Amino acid sequence: MKAEQSLVPDFDTYPITQRVLRAEIIPDGILVHWQDGLASPLHKFWLRENSPDAVTMHPESREQQLLLTDMPDDLQAAEVAPTADGGLYVRWTPDGQESRYHPGWLRAHVPSLAGQHSALPARQTWSAATLGALPRFAAAEIATDDAAFGAWLEAIHIHGIALLSGLPSEPEVIFDIPAKIGPIRETNFGRAFDVKTDGPVTSNAFTALALPVHTDLCTREYLPGLQFLHCLRNDANGGESILVDGFKIAEVLRQESPDLYETLSSQPVIFANKARDTDYRFAAPMLAHDRNGDLMEVRLSPWLRAPLTTPFEVTDKLYRGLRRFLRLCEDPAYRLVYRLQPGDMLAFDNRRLLHGRLAFDQQAGTRWLRGCYVELEELHSRLRILGRQRRQAALAPS
Amino acid sequence: MKAEQSLVPDFDTYPITQRVLRAEIIPDGILVHWQDGLASPLHKFWLRENSPDAVTMHPESREQQLLLTDMPDDLQAAEVAPTADGGLYVRWTPDGQESRYHPGWLRAHVPSLAGQHSALPARQTWSAATLGALPRFAAAEIATDDAAFGAWLEAIHIHGIALLSGLPSEPEVIFDIPAKIGPIRETNFGRAFDVKTDGPVTSNAFTALALPVHTDLCTREYLPGLQFLHCLRNDANGGESILVDGFKIAEVLRQESPDLYETLSSQPVIFANKARDTDYRFAAPMLAHDRNGDLMEVRLSPWLRAPLTTPFEVTDKLYRGLRRFLRLCEDPAYRLVYRLQPGDMLAFDNRRLLHGRLAFDQQAGTRWLRGCYVELEELHSRLRILGRQRRQAALAPS
Repeated sequence: MKAEQSLVPDFDTYPITQRVLRAEIIPDGILVHWQDGLASPLHKFWLRENSPDAVTMHPESREQQLLLTDMPDDLQAAEVAPTADGGLYVRWTPDGQESRYHPGWLRAHVPSLAGQHSALPARQTWSAATLGALPRFAAAEIATDDAAFGAWLEAIHIHGIALLSGLPSEPEVIFDIPAKIGPIRETNFGRAFDVKTDGPVTSNAFTALALPVHTDLCTREYLPGLQFLHCLRNDANGGESILVDGFKIAEVLRQESPDLYETLSSQPVIFANKARDTDYRFAAPMLAHDRNGDLMEVRLSPWLRAPLTTPFEVTDKLYRGLRRFLRLCEDPAYRLVYRLQPGDMLAFDNRRLLHGRLAFDQQAGTRWLRGCYVELEELHSRLRILGRQRRQAALAPS
Repeated sequence: MKAEQSLVPDFDTYPITQRVLRAEIIPDGILVHWQDGLASPLHKFWLRENSPDAVTMHPESREQQLLLTDMPDDLQAAEVAPTADGGLYVRWTPDGQESRYHPGWLRAHVPSLAGQHSALPARQTWSAATLGALPRFAAAEIATDDAAFGAWLEAIHIHGIALLSGLPSEPEVIFDIPAKIGPIRETNFGRAFDVKTDGPVTSNAFTALALPVHTDLCTREYLPGLQFLHCLRNDANGGESILVDGFKIAEVLRQESPDLYETLSSQPVIFANKARDTDYRFAAPMLAHDRNGDLMEVRLSPWLRAPLTTPFEVTDKLYRGLRRFLRLCEDPAYRLVYRLQPGDMLAFDNRRLLHGRLAFDQQAGTRWLRGCYVELEELHSRLRILGRQRRQAALAPS
């Protein structure tokens, strides 16, 4: 019985790196002793609701069908033991249900180690000198070579930006490449938006004005995570793209003035669109941090800020922080300037990378970019699936 | 000069409720004295960057074109005075620029009053007894009557849910009605998703199992704000829809156990989808609050919770909170049970309203719902535009 194959309650692959040596029943759970000396206390409900048996999880979807409220208050382990493959066996009382946990899965989900199994590569902030040039990929290669496709995804994740070159200069391409990562996030500007000057001026983006560096759609609670910009024509004078790593600027500001960094991280800035038929608003600190205190987002759109709502006493410091941040963005040390060629497509993290352009004039010819958005978590999902495929390949018999 | 018509730096309408009596220059700004005695200090940069003149804002987009970094450090007001219409006139030094602020706009944007001008109606939580039945609207009416359309939007906002009846039972309808509010949020399940049982079981939703009440897509950082469910067929036995106001449940829990409420508001719960080709994950407390401490979101999807990652010492209390919340959701006092008819469409706030269903069998016939998502801020934008229209109508000569 205990030698039966243990199952996994999801579709990932878990190499067996450590085996369960012994297990003991403790109040409210089980203490699992591993080969390497780690002792992990696991809560009884935690184990029971993640049991990979057909009562607890739907065998096809592998989603839970046992509810938390289905478990009796007096649930407890009646018998515990290692399985033959190094996993954990539990017999439960009062219901008699048996659970067998795969050693790779169990080790990967021990709370004190959670997240390590499928961690994404670390991000690397950059200045003009450290990045040197935009990470560049050939469209033909990512279309046919899985490794090149994966490298392109990783570059977007790590550096916040990558350039794809050699695409056709056709308007429909904007729907093809982003969809390789995930569904397009449609907005009031459409599934794709055209950055050109022949329509109504519903945004400064649709003029020939210089645009200071910014993130798009700051008026929305959830900033689009990935932005794609495909160059269809670029015969204008000027209009070079400016790219700045917003996380780098934040690091520099934090070093030189922790006080202003704190102000930008705590005082809300309000954004509102200016339009006849829509009225989107959102207020949030310009620098947002995740639960671990890591910088997660830069919300910066100079021409969409609505009047600040902070009390007068705070406002002066907030303006000092905003003005200093913008000044740092103007420093050539942090700016990459790149002239998009027809057939180029930029993909960048719109919650980190700041983009802008120089002013242009179209006496010599027109400038036309098409853009769209996809969520960052689609990129993360793809990267995790790539990780799974590597783990599967590593386990396959050669 | 000072009698010229003052402009507004956006497209809203601002009734003049108060006039500026006098203004004085103070360090870093201007102190504005209003008719009703309010004295509002306004920062010099705040005034300058929101000046509705053609240097500061683009006359067509009405977006700022003057940057914060364009303003000199030594900017200050050289002359201030009320305008003839009760607004504010400022002449700036060193650049000599003049600004004229509309009294209605200026009063609405005084930081201490900010947000009142375009505040949305207050939400009202409900139990089965207080709501009685789903707020119900006729599809034919909202299609032709602007007031009925507005009432439907307000019901969704205030109660978190409304029922539209009398739609055609055709698959394409799911693309028509939500688009009246805003763009559809596409997911890995498509622009629309079909809740029926004849496809692959990629989610428990696509079985005939009972589904406990939940919010959709808890594996995503940004929960879809609005969900639409259109009933195309419902000849099965069972399958009634269950609807619970998650904000009401949270209120009840807060009353009976502030301690468990605090646990659910602070301890992260991790969600992960189970699939072969996607791996979405997100960890957040089940109850999320906005900057003012108001409940903003309930994140609850029993069958997509991944193994908790909290330390053993915390886990027991977190399970107690989760189990108690789910028990309250099972209390008939808080549940509306409604059998969807073909041609019905539910629209609800997916960050507040919990939905589920009873189990069903299809011996008598099939059950087929189609759904899609739109963001909550699209609803808010529509409600604000309705507010503007009311203000405009109130100001129009009769």
